[in-house]
Parts: sequence; C-alpha cells; structure tokens
Amino acid sequence: MVERIESDSSEPQPLLVVGSVAFDNVITPFGEKERILGGAASYCSLAASYYAQVRMVGVIGNDFGEEHLERLRSRGIDLEGVQRDESGPTFFWKGKYHENFNRRDTLDIQLNVFEHFRPDLPSSYLDSNYVLLGNIHPALQMHVLDQLSGDAYVLADTIDLWIEVEKDALLRLIKKVNLFVINDSEAEDLTGESNVILAGRKLREMGPESVIVKKGEHGAILFHEEGTFALPAYPVTELRDPTGAGDSFAGALIGRLASRGNSDFRAIKEAMIYATCTASLTVEAFGCDRLESAGVQAIRERAQSLSDLISPN
Amino acid sequence: MVERIESDSSEPQPLLVVGSVAFDNVITPFGEKERILGGAASYCSLAASYYAQVRMVGVIGNDFGEEHLERLRSRGIDLEGVQRDESGPTFFWKGKYHENFNRRDTLDIQLNVFEHFRPDLPSSYLDSNYVLLGNIHPALQMHVLDQLSGDAYVLADTIDLWIEVEKDALLRLIKKVNLFVINDSEAEDLTGESNVILAGRKLREMGPESVIVKKGEHGAILFHEEGTFALPAYPVTELRDPTGAGDSFAGALIGRLASRGNSDFRAIKEAMIYATCTASLTVEAFGCDRLESAGVQAIRERAQSLSDLISPN
Repeated sequence: MVERIESDSSEPQPLLVVGSVAFDNVITPFGEKERILGGAASYCSLAASYYAQVRMVGVIGNDFGEEHLERLRSRGIDLEGVQRDESGPTFFWKGKYHENFNRRDTLDIQLNVFEHFRPDLPSSYLDSNYVLLGNIHPALQMHVLDQLSGDAYVLADTIDLWIEVEKDALLRLIKKVNLFVINDSEAEDLTGESNVILAGRKLREMGPESVIVKKGEHGAILFHEEGTFALPAYPVTELRDPTGAGDSFAGALIGRLASRGNSDFRAIKEAMIYATCTASLTVEAFGCDRLESAGVQAIRERAQSLSDLISPN
Repeated sequence: MVERIESDSSEPQPLLVVGSVAFDNVITPFGEKERILGGAASYCSLAASYYAQVRMVGVIGNDFGEEHLERLRSRGIDLEGVQRDESGPTFFWKGKYHENFNRRDTLDIQLNVFEHFRPDLPSSYLDSNYVLLGNIHPALQMHVLDQLSGDAYVLADTIDLWIEVEKDALLRLIKKVNLFVINDSEAEDLTGESNVILAGRKLREMGPESVIVKKGEHGAILFHEEGTFALPAYPVTELRDPTGAGDSFAGALIGRLASRGNSDFRAIKEAMIYATCTASLTVEAFGCDRLESAGVQAIRERAQSLSDLISPN
C-alpha cells in the first residue's frame, strides 16, 4: 500500500500525467551524476503519487531498465500508458548549473525515441477527470485532451521553446486548460509584460480560469477569478539540483486537487502549499532521489512550517 | 490634527528618526525630475508620520526652502532636530534607473553640508524610546544611541557603502540594535551567504534580536527568536520611481511599532504589512509625492488587500 497524504474526500480521483521520460546527466557546483532518471513525467508522477493514484503516459527506449520502472511502480504509479519503443534509446539531456544555480546551460540533448512520441491513451485512462499535461509540444498536449471521454480538470505546463516556435498552438491549447502553470520569464515572453501581476492577468484573459506564475526561490502567484494568492518558496538551505522542481510542483499541485476532488480557489491555494513543499524536497538531492524517498511525514512537516512562515498571527 | 492609522495602544510612543535630507535629481524610463525632496530622513519621517509622532534629526543647507519644511511640518513632524547649516547647500544626489528598474546608476553626488553632519539631539528628544537610525555612517548612528537617556527600541538601516568601508563600526553598531533592516545583496555582502535564509540567521547571530531582509519586488523576510515570517511585496503595477522605498518601509515599520508601543513577533509581522503597503505607495510617483498625499484610507485598503493576498483561507 503506497502511503499518501490524507485527503478530506470520500472519492479521490485518479490523475493522468503526460510528459517526457529521460535520462539526465546533471552537473552542479556540488558534483555530477550520469544517466539518472529524469523527464517531466517522472518528476510529475512521483510528486503526484504522494497525493493521488497516478496514470502515467510517456515513452521509453531500448536502454530503459526495469529498475527504473520499478521505482515508479513502487510509488503506486500505473505504467500502462508508458510505451516502450525498441527502435532507439530514451530521451537524453545533459545540463550544467552554475554557481548559485541562477543559470543553467544545456550541454547536450538527444530526443531519440521521444522525437516520434505520440501520447495515445490506453482505454483504461480515457475517463480521467484530472489531467496534467507536462511541457511537451502543444499539439501533443491537445491530442491528449482530444482522446478524453468526459470533462476533465486540466493543468498544463510549458517551456520557453514552445513559446518561441509554437506560440499559436500553445495559445489554442491554453484556451482549453483550467490551470496554466508557467514561470516568470516565460510569462513575460508569452505576454510581453515584465510586471508579473500584469502578466498573470493577461494570461488569464487568454483563456485559463486560473494561472500560476512561478518565481523560483521567490515563490509563486496564483491568479484566479476570486482573487490572487502569493506564496513564498519553502526556505531551502541545502539546494543541490534544481532539475525537476517545476515538474514536482505541478505534479503535487494537481495530485492534491485530484485527491480532494476539489479545484476551487481555496483548494488551489492549499494545494500550492503542498506543491511548494514537495518541490523543495526534490531540489535537496540529485534527480528524483529525495523526492522518491521523502515520505509523507516530511511533506506534512514542511506544509506546517510553510503555513507558519506565511502566518501573520 | 494629522490623520494617523489607529492603534490599539493607550500610550503611543513618539519616534526619533535620524538620517539624510537631500535634493534628488531622478531619471527613470518615465521621465526626469530635478531637485525634489529626498534623503532617508525625509522618506522615513513622512512614512512614519502615518502612524506615530515623529521627531526628525538631519541637516539642511542654505538652499533648503521653507516650502519643503512646511511639507514635513504639515504631516505633524517635529523639526526641532533639523539643523540648518548656512555654510553650503543641501546634500545632493542624481541617479538614473534603467528599463525595468532593476539597476540604478548614481550620476552625481555632492555631500555639501551633510559631510560634517553630527546628529546632536535636542534635549526634548533624549527620552525617545523608539528610534530609527537611517543609513548614515555607523559611527554617527552610534553617536545617536549614546545620547539617549533610557532604553530604546532601535531599528537600523544601512547601505552597501558602509559594509565596504566601515564594516567594523557597522558590526559594533548592530550589536546594539533591536531590529536590523537590510536588503538581500547587502545581506550577502555582510555575511558572505548568498542563501537569504542562511544570511538572515547569520545576521541574527551578529547581535540584533530581529532581522528583516528585503528582497524588493519579491517581498521581505523577518528572522526573529520566535520564528520566521515571509511576506510578499504589495503587487505594484504602476512603478514610477523606486527611490525611498526602503526608507518608507523602515519608517512605516517602526512608526507602527511605536504607535502600538509593542515590538513583539506578532507586532513586527503586522507592522511589516503596513510597511510594505506604505512603501508601495511611495514608488507610484516621483519622490515623496504619492507618499505625502496618500492618506490613511489608501494605506488601510492596501493593508487589507495584502492580508487577503497572503491568506490561504
């Protein structure tokens, strides 16, 4: 039985997660790791698994060992939607973070089997009513939505690449999204607004009922019809590898909403606290290691600390 | 009768403010203003005047017109401690802010009468038990403390210059300070810690019972024996001139504490909300204009908005 954060719902909902699966080589001021499990779908799914039953969709290549699948499976993640493509190796990324982690360079990227990935859903996934669209091509994100049999609450993430080269497809997609999550520099690229408040408002006018702009170590801001909510980051003092922080945030966020079967303003605010704490664990070790081993008690304690940190009383 | 934000104290305390008085030429992407009233003491005093009776200490030159004194007087500020030095003109600063306001260059600085300023207190100020030491030379800040007749609650601010050239004097001073306010880059300079949480903790170990690290548009963090409090900035969308934001924050902060006669953890947290809102008004116009004309109702409304912005409920 996989341990999860308790929810107040009698009908927790399963969560569909779609994204990349990768091997990463990561270089930071603290060291270097090779061929560690990465990719948006891995981080999102592991993070979400602390809250909800996860249905994962992605593609792995002929070099993807059973031990990695087992890591995901042991967190209760349903892997029926993970396709194995024997024609080549798994998506590979190599990156280097600089002093203070305020900049990273991509040193190598090999799409491999990810280049022809088409996220076709197993029939058992079609009734999902909570969906996380990781930062893949917006046309593939749309393809996922087109297959769903009913109404779903949809969170979408993106990256700067799609804003640059697939802006129209991205704008079409976000009209169909309930919760759009984006970082501050991407929000500026997409809206032309450097002021994060104005950028957040403009993004909501583009369609999504809610928008969260992430500001890294400075926290995140939620823009919602009922109001705005600013949350500082969890005060991390042992930053080791920021890879996957955004994906962990997104995964925990919608995982929490799915587990409560509730996505109103207050529920999103509460989920942001869990998401922030879950992401704070991810960055304290290389790759998925800390995220995977953290346990629910560590998350609960951080959620309490963060609530105290923001309490004026 | 000067209008002030109501306080729950039956014995609001007067506040002693010491700092520079200046004329500023300010260039921003929105325009240019010449010889506007500036200096830390002016901003601190005007901001504090919304909360407490202010006793101001500074020096003005032979070019400082009655109309500027009248602006301060009309906010109920006691000017007995403002010395006029007829030997030369008032301290002058000229600066330019760049696109997005993330960098400013000092184009000209003329110390003038400020060069020989010695903050001797009028006898009527000696019993002050709330004191704001603006960012003047740490030896002059110490000279103010040496004159006080009793125990006082002391807030000190500083600037990067003193960290560079008068670090020892600054370290001696902050041992005597109750609340030390500093921005994030200065905190890094003074402690060698780039992580703001670790820097804040180190600063507390240097003596002050409380430390606030300001992060500009990303808010501020309070480090206190009883806990930590992170507050986002007020969401300003009409930034016009950031000059004086930090001074307004400091002035409103200790002004609120003085008006309540309370400086415990909760009181400082509440005062930070008022300080953030007061500073947010300052930056919406050039110089002191918006700060001076804002009125208590605008501050009250912003304090309510900011409380809503950070509420998870």
